[in-house]
Amino acid sequence: MKILIIGGQGTIGKKVNDHFAKKHEVITGGRNSGNVIVDSVNSKSIEAMFESVAKVDAIVCIAGEAKWAAFESMTEEDFYIGLKSKLMGQVNLVRIGQAYVNAGGSFTLTTGILADHPVALTTSAAMVNGGIHSFVKAVSLELKDGIRINVVSSGLVEDAVEKYESYFPGHNPIPMRKVINGYVKSVEGKGTGEVIRMYDNC
Amino acid sequence: MKILIIGGQGTIGKKVNDHFAKKHEVITGGRNSGNVIVDSVNSKSIEAMFESVAKVDAIVCIAGEAKWAAFESMTEEDFYIGLKSKLMGQVNLVRIGQAYVNAGGSFTLTTGILADHPVALTTSAAMVNGGIHSFVKAVSLELKDGIRINVVSSGLVEDAVEKYESYFPGHNPIPMRKVINGYVKSVEGKGTGEVIRMYDNC
Repeated sequence: MKILIIGGQGTIGKKVNDHFAKKHEVITGGRNSGNVIVDSVNSKSIEAMFESVAKVDAIVCIAGEAKWAAFESMTEEDFYIGLKSKLMGQVNLVRIGQAYVNAGGSFTLTTGILADHPVALTTSAAMVNGGIHSFVKAVSLELKDGIRINVVSSGLVEDAVEKYESYFPGHNPIPMRKVINGYVKSVEGKGTGEVIRMYDNC
Repeated sequence: MKILIIGGQGTIGKKVNDHFAKKHEVITGGRNSGNVIVDSVNSKSIEAMFESVAKVDAIVCIAGEAKWAAFESMTEEDFYIGLKSKLMGQVNLVRIGQAYVNAGGSFTLTTGILADHPVALTTSAAMVNGGIHSFVKAVSLELKDGIRINVVSSGLVEDAVEKYESYFPGHNPIPMRKVINGYVKSVEGKGTGEVIRMYDNC
């Protein structure tokens, strides 16, 4: 299978990348590094990426950001950081990418536990994740040629515990092998419109 | 209780308005009619509304739109119609309105069944609704002074059956008295961070 992984250099992306590379042809896309450079906030950049990569069997997106801050300090513009990046970045990847996925291929997007179990400071991140969950369910009804789409939503991942555990009191870290399995289930399984939740203690 | 209802002239809004007006002081806000004029897509207009209305005990929003169209025909700009209106319109109402709700008061937002059970043509509407569900859960952790927030998500409402039933094959219409009860539960109950689902056959 020819798999395009956007954000294949991040905490989760690198492990997912290494796993799929064992038995598939993987192309990584990133803002600053990878086989192809792409800024997913910019739909023109997404179009240029697909022009260069051409058709693939699976597209995995593990990219996008949103501002974390106290709600009372969040401006309207602060919310648009997440809307333009993690939300519309992923929507545009599907919107533009649908023409570049082979029949029977798949999209796998990425969100996180905040959609269902938010913590303080995450009004924007939670909102964006929840939006993607519903988008995936809806767009799965319309994609053509047997193209599937799912989203992997992980809890606090083991490799990010040091950086984020203070934000997630009482959350059990999710082993990386479980997170990777979420992506494997989406790419190599047959399901579509699924929110693949990798949570513990929820 | 002094209740501000944005969109109090629509299909659901009018009935909710009539119900609350029986035992509360209701102020309605709308784009073209109502006690106060407000365009919720414009945060300056929301600010001007609150300047004129001053403090209230409950804010109910039943306003906002999103484009319905086949996913393959949706442009990036088409998605921003819903993001600016039904999504950020409601977020801005909470962001600005938090200073105008009395202690122990409440916000009640509005989404719809598409967040959980989308139908064809609703990638944008579903996404916006799902985003609001997660936003409400997240912001409920941060609002001060005992201010609560919930969202009412209804299935196809009885009064809209004629207009929308062809989009919702097999959906059982939701009686208006049940939908109204969703708003009553939020405004007069004690819950917060709740997605009050008024669905049937899901």
